[in-house]
Amino acid sequence: MDTTVGDLSEREVLRRIAARTGRASAALVGPGDDAAVVAAPAGSVVATTDTLVHGPDFRLAWSRGYDLGWKAAAVNLADVAAMGARPTALLVALAMPADTRIAFVEALADGLREACEALAPGCAVVGGDLTVSDTLTVAVTALGDLEGRAPVLRSGAEPGDVVAIAGELGLAGRGLAILFGRFRDAAGDPVPVDAAALRAGEAALLEAQLRPAPPIGLGAMAAVAGAKAMMDVSDGLALDASRMAEASGVAIDLDPSGLGPDVAAALEGGEDHALLATFAAEPLPPGFRAIGRVREGSGVLVDGAPYDRRGGWDPYADWDARTG
Amino acid sequence: MDTTVGDLSEREVLRRIAARTGRASAALVGPGDDAAVVAAPAGSVVATTDTLVHGPDFRLAWSRGYDLGWKAAAVNLADVAAMGARPTALLVALAMPADTRIAFVEALADGLREACEALAPGCAVVGGDLTVSDTLTVAVTALGDLEGRAPVLRSGAEPGDVVAIAGELGLAGRGLAILFGRFRDAAGDPVPVDAAALRAGEAALLEAQLRPAPPIGLGAMAAVAGAKAMMDVSDGLALDASRMAEASGVAIDLDPSGLGPDVAAALEGGEDHALLATFAAEPLPPGFRAIGRVREGSGVLVDGAPYDRRGGWDPYADWDARTG
Repeated sequence: MDTTVGDLSEREVLRRIAARTGRASAALVGPGDDAAVVAAPAGSVVATTDTLVHGPDFRLAWSRGYDLGWKAAAVNLADVAAMGARPTALLVALAMPADTRIAFVEALADGLREACEALAPGCAVVGGDLTVSDTLTVAVTALGDLEGRAPVLRSGAEPGDVVAIAGELGLAGRGLAILFGRFRDAAGDPVPVDAAALRAGEAALLEAQLRPAPPIGLGAMAAVAGAKAMMDVSDGLALDASRMAEASGVAIDLDPSGLGPDVAAALEGGEDHALLATFAAEPLPPGFRAIGRVREGSGVLVDGAPYDRRGGWDPYADWDARTG
Repeated sequence: MDTTVGDLSEREVLRRIAARTGRASAALVGPGDDAAVVAAPAGSVVATTDTLVHGPDFRLAWSRGYDLGWKAAAVNLADVAAMGARPTALLVALAMPADTRIAFVEALADGLREACEALAPGCAVVGGDLTVSDTLTVAVTALGDLEGRAPVLRSGAEPGDVVAIAGELGLAGRGLAILFGRFRDAAGDPVPVDAAALRAGEAALLEAQLRPAPPIGLGAMAAVAGAKAMMDVSDGLALDASRMAEASGVAIDLDPSGLGPDVAAALEGGEDHALLATFAAEPLPPGFRAIGRVREGSGVLVDGAPYDRRGGWDPYADWDARTG
């Protein structure tokens, strides 16, 4: 039960992972050879990579193996969706200490599979890599299919467009604040969440942080509906909208009445991986709600006034190993 | 000059990397959006991922940033080539301590670019991810194009086939032995290589270990020439040939006269990333040389006798952080 990966051969660890990660419907060659081969019937492939590192990106006291696998899949699927594509396959590079329990790794594989099943049916792990490291690290690459459509870039927004969002804003950030505020010991180290200590609604905030469920399928739907610009909101709406504004050479004017009860959390909380898009006009496609307008100018406005709070997350500026 | 990544914003570090990584000819959308888009004109994409972790996979006392970037590219390009494909694009997930010097990162980007230019022209970095970690980690994903051919798998070898190799055998392993044997201090920690202490020919062995140059272009040529099975030799010929034998349900009988002057190094040294292939008959395509025959049976034979020395490298079984 407490068998570690160091007790097993690389081959046996890989076998146990592969037994759990399912099969991608687009896989022409799956795990086990030098490389996978994935169908790309539209003649192009969308590709993105995102890494979760123990310390800055997750803490084992808070995240189970399942959560880690789920989140590593979800954040990458969101980047594929944000191009207007359908995710087809994941590659997973896992670097972990030799004393990592194999049960943890199996749960991680379950989380990868179930995130794909729930968020992007047909997508699954097609390959990966296993190595030893002092720092538990999960680097995922996601591939996707544009199905003949042009990719939806950050740079396509034009004055007059409706700014719209699909998915949650601010919940994951509020969940992180609960973890940092209430589930650390006197030295500042994370301690497991005591479910009995949670108030009404807080379990959902932790869920949003630990197992985000961005609306992956809506990315392709938005593209079909004519989305002009799109990106996933990983670093907070204010910061990510400013990136879209800059790429498009426009201003994005957000209406706080569309941002829910906690406007500051919606603007500055990261990691929800909602889809931010602009459309020429309403009606919006299902799942999207209007949160503002594209204007001439630059930067992010809230109710017409420049919004200068940076929000978001910079791994080098914001992470301090001593304070978490 | 000693500016670290922690002194700069994520955006500035990414800008400096992107300025050096070149442009992939297959890139329809390059770095800077949520994901890249890479042409896949044959309707499928080859995809593989491989990670280099500080400690088990490289030591900063021995590897410069340039070497690390070069090797991270080369080992992944070899996996694409081993499928009979042409590499088209790399994604690079870089996790590094905040005190990593930006000059090191820029050199790493140069190594990535120049390995692609030298080994797989047209291929370049199309995307990536940057995060902070206590352990310097470079996770690369390589994509490739089969150009309409079927992938060449490990499982296609049949009795009577000629076993052939393209590239070096044993040099990288001999280079590693020099580093471990002669360039460590009394405590066992790596110390920089003193070029004046190298004997004739040893510089080439270190080069093979630190900046391997596998024959990437020969992978697609082998496929065109009808290679029936192929894989890259990353863990030593004996171990990798046993994997091909098992996948194909055959025995692989190696002729030691084809393995160069140091047969043990050729059989057991890893990390050369030569291409091991089988062909129905000679003549072999340019760059390949015969090293044996496929037989009925199982396992690896040398001169007709079973070869049971395992060789190769298992990250969990073989790495000990204390002894290196």
